[in-house]
Amino acid sequence: MAVKKPNEILISKTKRVEDYVLDVIVMFNQGYDEVELKGVGNSIYKAVEVYNQLKDRLGDGVILEKADIGSEVKDRRRISYISIKLKRVY
Amino acid sequence: MAVKKPNEILISKTKRVEDYVLDVIVMFNQGYDEVELKGVGNSIYKAVEVYNQLKDRLGDGVILEKADIGSEVKDRRRISYISIKLKRVY
Repeated sequence: MAVKKPNEILISKTKRVEDYVLDVIVMFNQGYDEVELKGVGNSIYKAVEVYNQLKDRLGDGVILEKADIGSEVKDRRRISYISIKLKRVY
Repeated sequence: MAVKKPNEILISKTKRVEDYVLDVIVMFNQGYDEVELKGVGNSIYKAVEVYNQLKDRLGDGVILEKADIGSEVKDRRRISYISIKLKRVY
């Protein structure tokens, strides 16, 4: 697995969408202006949900800088991922 | 539901990923240079899979022009969607 960037949040099954929304807000408050959400496989849908719920809460305070999709090979299997770059606006 | 564009493919549960990959290739052959994949709700993952399998087949022949995510209200519920714009390269 690739090394996780400090401002990257990997979306998985362990936490609820609301928890990830809170994680992003906490990171914004810690001074990160950009946060990257990464969802792999079945968590792709969840990553998009996190973005939408965050958008509901922060409105114009957050913008979608870039949404990127692709695939990576893990344990000899190709897995799809989505990477969502969010930017905090003041 | 919004009016479907002629070059838009709405990903749903009815067909397999392979069928959608074929649909895109057929549309490219019909002369469309740009094809838009739209996946709503749980089909978001499937839409990304279609893109990746297409990329496997066409390689540099197809490029990801834009991936957009957002939400829309349907039957008073907010549903997440992904819109993937693909471009044919000759």
